[in-house]
Amino acid sequence: MTVKHDHTTHPFLINNEWLESKTGETVPIHSPDNGVQVGQVPAMSREEVNQAVNLAADVQENWAATEVHERSDLLHRWADELDQVADKIGAMIQKEVGKTFASAKSEVKRTAQLIRHTAEEGLRTHGSFIQGDAFPGASRSTKAMVQKVPHGVILAISPFNYPVNLAASKIAPALVTGNTVVFKPATQGAVSGLMMIDALVKAGLPKGVLNVVTGRGSVIGDYVVTHPKLDMITFTGGTATGQHIAKKASMIPVVLELGGKDPAIVLEDADLKKAAKEIVSGAFSYSGQRCTAIKRVMVTEQAADELVEKIREHVAALSVGYSTEEVDIIPMIDQKSADYVTGLIEDAVKKGATIVHEGQNDQNLLSPVVLDHVTEDMEIAWEEQFGPVLPIMRVANELEAVDLEKRNAYGLQASIFTKDMEKAFTLAERMNVGTVQINGKTSRGPDHFPFLGVKNSGQGVQGIGRSIDSMLRDKVIVLNL
Amino acid sequence: MTVKHDHTTHPFLINNEWLESKTGETVPIHSPDNGVQVGQVPAMSREEVNQAVNLAADVQENWAATEVHERSDLLHRWADELDQVADKIGAMIQKEVGKTFASAKSEVKRTAQLIRHTAEEGLRTHGSFIQGDAFPGASRSTKAMVQKVPHGVILAISPFNYPVNLAASKIAPALVTGNTVVFKPATQGAVSGLMMIDALVKAGLPKGVLNVVTGRGSVIGDYVVTHPKLDMITFTGGTATGQHIAKKASMIPVVLELGGKDPAIVLEDADLKKAAKEIVSGAFSYSGQRCTAIKRVMVTEQAADELVEKIREHVAALSVGYSTEEVDIIPMIDQKSADYVTGLIEDAVKKGATIVHEGQNDQNLLSPVVLDHVTEDMEIAWEEQFGPVLPIMRVANELEAVDLEKRNAYGLQASIFTKDMEKAFTLAERMNVGTVQINGKTSRGPDHFPFLGVKNSGQGVQGIGRSIDSMLRDKVIVLNL
Amino acid sequence: MTVKHDHTTHPFLINNEWLESKTGETVPIHSPDNGVQVGQVPAMSREEVNQAVNLAADVQENWAATEVHERSDLLHRWADELDQVADKIGAMIQKEVGKTFASAKSEVKRTAQLIRHTAEEGLRTHGSFIQGDAFPGASRSTKAMVQKVPHGVILAISPFNYPVNLAASKIAPALVTGNTVVFKPATQGAVSGLMMIDALVKAGLPKGVLNVVTGRGSVIGDYVVTHPKLDMITFTGGTATGQHIAKKASMIPVVLELGGKDPAIVLEDADLKKAAKEIVSGAFSYSGQRCTAIKRVMVTEQAADELVEKIREHVAALSVGYSTEEVDIIPMIDQKSADYVTGLIEDAVKKGATIVHEGQNDQNLLSPVVLDHVTEDMEIAWEEQFGPVLPIMRVANELEAVDLEKRNAYGLQASIFTKDMEKAFTLAERMNVGTVQINGKTSRGPDHFPFLGVKNSGQGVQGIGRSIDSMLRDKVIVLNL
Amino acid sequence: MTVKHDHTTHPFLINNEWLESKTGETVPIHSPDNGVQVGQVPAMSREEVNQAVNLAADVQENWAATEVHERSDLLHRWADELDQVADKIGAMIQKEVGKTFASAKSEVKRTAQLIRHTAEEGLRTHGSFIQGDAFPGASRSTKAMVQKVPHGVILAISPFNYPVNLAASKIAPALVTGNTVVFKPATQGAVSGLMMIDALVKAGLPKGVLNVVTGRGSVIGDYVVTHPKLDMITFTGGTATGQHIAKKASMIPVVLELGGKDPAIVLEDADLKKAAKEIVSGAFSYSGQRCTAIKRVMVTEQAADELVEKIREHVAALSVGYSTEEVDIIPMIDQKSADYVTGLIEDAVKKGATIVHEGQNDQNLLSPVVLDHVTEDMEIAWEEQFGPVLPIMRVANELEAVDLEKRNAYGLQASIFTKDMEKAFTLAERMNVGTVQINGKTSRGPDHFPFLGVKNSGQGVQGIGRSIDSMLRDKVIVLNL
Repeated sequence: MTVKHDHTTHPFLINNEWLESKTGETVPIHSPDNGVQVGQVPAMSREEVNQAVNLAADVQENWAATEVHERSDLLHRWADELDQVADKIGAMIQKEVGKTFASAKSEVKRTAQLIRHTAEEGLRTHGSFIQGDAFPGASRSTKAMVQKVPHGVILAISPFNYPVNLAASKIAPALVTGNTVVFKPATQGAVSGLMMIDALVKAGLPKGVLNVVTGRGSVIGDYVVTHPKLDMITFTGGTATGQHIAKKASMIPVVLELGGKDPAIVLEDADLKKAAKEIVSGAFSYSGQRCTAIKRVMVTEQAADELVEKIREHVAALSVGYSTEEVDIIPMIDQKSADYVTGLIEDAVKKGATIVHEGQNDQNLLSPVVLDHVTEDMEIAWEEQFGPVLPIMRVANELEAVDLEKRNAYGLQASIFTKDMEKAFTLAERMNVGTVQINGKTSRGPDHFPFLGVKNSGQGVQGIGRSIDSMLRDKVIVLNL
Repeated sequence: MTVKHDHTTHPFLINNEWLESKTGETVPIHSPDNGVQVGQVPAMSREEVNQAVNLAADVQENWAATEVHERSDLLHRWADELDQVADKIGAMIQKEVGKTFASAKSEVKRTAQLIRHTAEEGLRTHGSFIQGDAFPGASRSTKAMVQKVPHGVILAISPFNYPVNLAASKIAPALVTGNTVVFKPATQGAVSGLMMIDALVKAGLPKGVLNVVTGRGSVIGDYVVTHPKLDMITFTGGTATGQHIAKKASMIPVVLELGGKDPAIVLEDADLKKAAKEIVSGAFSYSGQRCTAIKRVMVTEQAADELVEKIREHVAALSVGYSTEEVDIIPMIDQKSADYVTGLIEDAVKKGATIVHEGQNDQNLLSPVVLDHVTEDMEIAWEEQFGPVLPIMRVANELEAVDLEKRNAYGLQASIFTKDMEKAFTLAERMNVGTVQINGKTSRGPDHFPFLGVKNSGQGVQGIGRSIDSMLRDKVIVLNL
Repeated sequence: MTVKHDHTTHPFLINNEWLESKTGETVPIHSPDNGVQVGQVPAMSREEVNQAVNLAADVQENWAATEVHERSDLLHRWADELDQVADKIGAMIQKEVGKTFASAKSEVKRTAQLIRHTAEEGLRTHGSFIQGDAFPGASRSTKAMVQKVPHGVILAISPFNYPVNLAASKIAPALVTGNTVVFKPATQGAVSGLMMIDALVKAGLPKGVLNVVTGRGSVIGDYVVTHPKLDMITFTGGTATGQHIAKKASMIPVVLELGGKDPAIVLEDADLKKAAKEIVSGAFSYSGQRCTAIKRVMVTEQAADELVEKIREHVAALSVGYSTEEVDIIPMIDQKSADYVTGLIEDAVKKGATIVHEGQNDQNLLSPVVLDHVTEDMEIAWEEQFGPVLPIMRVANELEAVDLEKRNAYGLQASIFTKDMEKAFTLAERMNVGTVQINGKTSRGPDHFPFLGVKNSGQGVQGIGRSIDSMLRDKVIVLNL
Repeated sequence: MTVKHDHTTHPFLINNEWLESKTGETVPIHSPDNGVQVGQVPAMSREEVNQAVNLAADVQENWAATEVHERSDLLHRWADELDQVADKIGAMIQKEVGKTFASAKSEVKRTAQLIRHTAEEGLRTHGSFIQGDAFPGASRSTKAMVQKVPHGVILAISPFNYPVNLAASKIAPALVTGNTVVFKPATQGAVSGLMMIDALVKAGLPKGVLNVVTGRGSVIGDYVVTHPKLDMITFTGGTATGQHIAKKASMIPVVLELGGKDPAIVLEDADLKKAAKEIVSGAFSYSGQRCTAIKRVMVTEQAADELVEKIREHVAALSVGYSTEEVDIIPMIDQKSADYVTGLIEDAVKKGATIVHEGQNDQNLLSPVVLDHVTEDMEIAWEEQFGPVLPIMRVANELEAVDLEKRNAYGLQASIFTKDMEKAFTLAERMNVGTVQINGKTSRGPDHFPFLGVKNSGQGVQGIGRSIDSMLRDKVIVLNL
């Protein structure tokens, strides 16, 4: 299959109507495989964005007043619809973001599961009942019912790399809790996102409860983020944008899932076979374009030679090609990103890093690279590569690894490979990250686990349960008898 | 007792040393009673502030590594110390913020109780243990231990009106959870705050775990709020300042407790005797200088005449004078605040409000005022008076009250007075506030209830348990077996 | 439709095989409508019962080791199967226990919903993670993972009145939590229960995970209850049997849902129209053969005349007939039960009770009866009638009602009708029952609410979440680092 | 110090009066050190027991109506009183049960901490607030407040080995939750228990809220256990007695902490030095008279010789003597228990076990014994020795250990020693016990961890939080709006 030019404009949704922008302008979407245009989305005006937000605000009280089992049922129907169009949406994900069809379709199927689990979790957001007399001087005749109620209107902004999954993981918890949504997809991935919303409309989305915003960040970005009728923002994407949103947003909750520089720390007593396998899978899946990819390895000298060789073997076995071929390594999302990665490699090599494995590159299609003997002075020791290159840093012992990790500007996840329980927990205690994986690769799922980044990796917590929590606030009703 | 001039400089605390600023500058504190100076605090430089924050950051990992029962014990000892100096601190609160001695001392005693309850609550921040197999396709061999860990360094900024209680309610949860603290008291109340910290030092505060910042907001305000080593800000104070902090702060959690315009809604079937008593107490305690004061009454026409008369009787019985006299109504914190209140009254009267009760004013000592027939066009219908005046709005029915409340820029609390359970809950459901009090005045306590404001009234949730929650984040350790 | 004689033997299930007893004996089942036989079940021997329990024990460890999402999926498929055969099972329920087809089918449909909700709740039985240092002297290097694990083999005994729902509400939570089940249906309702199990087998029940026991209580009752391989018993049925099981059972958890004598207390300020409607529905549904039926009314003198008249009107409108006719009142389950009810009525009338409403009786088909002026000396004031008769006791005030209720041997539920919130809560506080319904009839559902009886009404708690809890125990894994 | 004869009768407590029995009979208490009588307690009649229970029932509703912070304060004062008389009670524990003074006093001090922690935990038994609309077809207008309320009257029966700690761990949670208590101490330890209750009375125990029962089990045992006014029984003691109580008790909750046969499983990769130290401490503290003592070791052949030698060294260093000497090994509680232990040793030796270490015995003072090569045919492989002897079983691998443990009639705790995390968790998963200790000895504390036994080791869960839970039941208040 070859991706062909396609200039179809995919309209946005307001009040359950699919519309094109009155601006008449559009933003094109190009395939990472070969750069051909695969569609375009309207470049909305601020006025149109304003309308999208206002409508979401207008219908919110009614939506929140709907019985929760009805909101939950909408999500179940949505998941069923998605399952039915998984092939179609999968094909579009492939075109837009260059993922292989198998992994694109699997993203859709897994998203249906995520939505179902969210639908059920959302039924179970019970409150608490607190008697006054737990505090000295107060009395049991004062009784508090602490309910959970929605914030109101939530702006959900999703990234290109999982255009369906990372959108639904924001939209589903918002809807089930009685919030309404303004959804802004990343431009690359936007059409897949719109197709996912189409399934939601077919499932019975009430008018105005979710509206879509597409267009140019330079025109509508700050406008939508600062809209006074927003009550919460949830964003997944780059750290710079996340920080900008945090600054711009007014006094409302902001949940941010941003970049990472996740280390895999390997001690000499580890199962090196397992470690190598997990590391390569963690580092190179979707060509490393994942926030939770393993982005640097720290291995103690004693284990280094053996680990590097095992990693090399796994990487050498990775197939490289285009999304149409079901290969392991596909082209990067755009040339700029590819150039950034090759720049990091060049810097490292210039400063003394050894190339353990490399291959041919073709424009934005980069072959996987393993760099050994990476040192602190190299950019790739600290910068998030977001591409198919894995730097390995040799350390004298675990303390050196802890020290390196402490200076990490990011704090998403860390993997620790060792058989020694005591060492594993001691090291884990000292990692200032959201999640420590003991003897496994860094990873977002399973989707019911809390998922968070600290430092430059984000703010707030996701994962199905925590996402739901983040979209509810306390409302206290006190009986004074 | 007459408050006398006193120019003592009360030093700040860094690394358990009481220091004066190298700037040599100070900020004076004047008594609301008679304007005499009752002390002064150093006007710290940015460099000194920087030192305070850095020290807190340096020792944080060690403090977090202390066993929690030791951190909890420190708080228990602090509470014991406070009980012993309650008279002394009470006398200083009286001087600085013009509260009567009885209520000032009671604030200290109640703070000791709050600290003890926090000490015990902080022992109980257990995590969860989640098996992987709850999600389709995942396995029980993936197990998550979700721990609660501290954010790091917390900036705690307290207001003038409860200079001890609203400082300790931030500091105690921060310390017990393993965070370190930079404490910035409001200038008025700062000396009381410093005396409270002295008790903490005597109780055994380790070096650097809490450092104090005093001085001019114009010089150090933005500097401290944007310091890169801060990991969280918790603030109680005015809405404008809160919003400013929300904008300025980087990507860190910010908990804000700001202003309110809490309504008391009284239906015709209410126990009007109880309602009047609760309303007057809720509106005029500490001359209305409380965020949770009742700031407007909405009463249905049928009940209005009777309720107004009952309110008038209660207000007429309030004694007016100076903090040295144990009266009900004391001078406002400063002349500017008093002028603001009289301006609101004048505006209302000019536009047709009736004065039901008034008295003599003497500079910033305002007699309590009840205004009837207040209408939407008057400023006092919407603005937070923060003084001893109570506007009464007559409404046709509860729907009109709901409509008025919906347009409230604030969303702290609301009181509803009715005997009818169904009406009470239906109305409560429609109030977009943090807390609805059924048949009782608006109120922050009991201190173990969640306490929050929405809209312009704040962000995040306080109350002992929730404050502790807000100062912890998830840290997930995943075993991959 | 006339129910016809049918002598089909419905086999039991062991190891996924449908078997007849080697005893060759059976127990016949007769329709309450006309006494004709509608089927029979095998009278199993103790040896066969022993085999059923042993098989459940043998496969339990494997079943518990299955990933929970697979156990949950089995329940979802079971619910789907039940939906498909709802007509068929509904028809059998009608025959066996004399319920109208509409309510019989609705029982099956509602059971499918209950199973689905249980399937999802069972996915969410997460544990806790507790650090050692919360206790003085202990350390954080001691860490407890508190998991939830199944008990083992659960004996589930269900009653005749909801032969499908009250069986599935035991079986579904047992299975999803990894317990295996020995299911003993009440003889009347057994065939419906077996059909429900057939749907479970079709859904993919693994061999041995649930086995069925049918037969004569006199032969196998004590034998099965005292079987040493049982790890828990859950029973719904009569109080005498429940107490007997409690005595007989060895040191294992026993959950019992037994009889009730639920009062409806009506104060003079109540909405009497609503009260009358709720009371008649609560008292006469399924001819009062429900543990949570309202079984006596206590009304204050002031409201009594009006309430009694309103109740009379509602009762007069109830249609009486056979299950084939979709009427309100159907024949009682057997003649013995009918005789017991008429005995209670005669006793009451003899002692001075007034008959407000009565009709023609035909054998075990009793017309609904309302008795006014019932007094403490009458048996019906205290005994559980479990039939279509409602005694009304007039009380001077609520204190007299409290006093009457305190002497109730049962403690299932109580209804309170009043508009006054304060009175409602004060009365509710004094009721020694599992559940107090304010302004609503007594009722088991919604099924996610905790449901329990105290005193002679039972032991332990049900409702979906609590049933699941009751079938799990803690298992603590302590890491000593 | 020599223990002297003392025939003082220590009266029991009813309604805050210290009384002697009208029977005039007493039960003597003899010191394990030298058999001299150290005091006696009244042998109460059934009538007196009846009075104790009835009084507890009469005042229970009032006690439950007390604000919880007042009940909590009573416990805090009790802990303070205990701290003050720790020396005195410690001395009596020493006399009654032969513990050294240091460990006896430490028991009292630790009990004060347990009571304080319970006092605070009891303040925090909040309920939940559940909306109806989580279930299909139901509505949010049905709202459930699920409160926690006390059962009523609790019978607390404590054992000899921790006569203060294991009594207070039942009494404190009962009192703070609003239950009243009938306390029956073990005869040996009864005086210490009565002194502990004296401290409670001094702390302000209200009349009738706790009453004491002492006497002969043969006369009053079954009588008290089956008293109709009891609402719960909590018992720690021998398995036979526990099972008897379970049978006798009527339909009320029964929590039982009984015997154990806790294994320590040691794999070849374990830290054998740590393992040996933990095992000896776990097996021989208080001469092994602890339910959680390590009662058999299973070690893989590869590690056996080294482990046995290390254990031998530790045991050889244990000092042996009388409680007055602060030694490690003290006399057993009575001669019968000592004879039982020597009988087990003889049986083992006869069947081929090797004595690794032994010493001189003097009546009930047994020197510590280590038996190697213990096999399945020996009684000590399976029976609970409750004395200073440790059997070691050599196993081929961990599967053999699992198999041995599966056939254990008890299921309290198990220790696993290995460095390999995966093996540790896999083994832990297969242990059918209440708690698995990884790399640490079996142990009841820290006291806030859940503590439970399965199979013959008990029923229900203790540990501060769970004990409190076990003494509360749900009470649901449903609002039907």
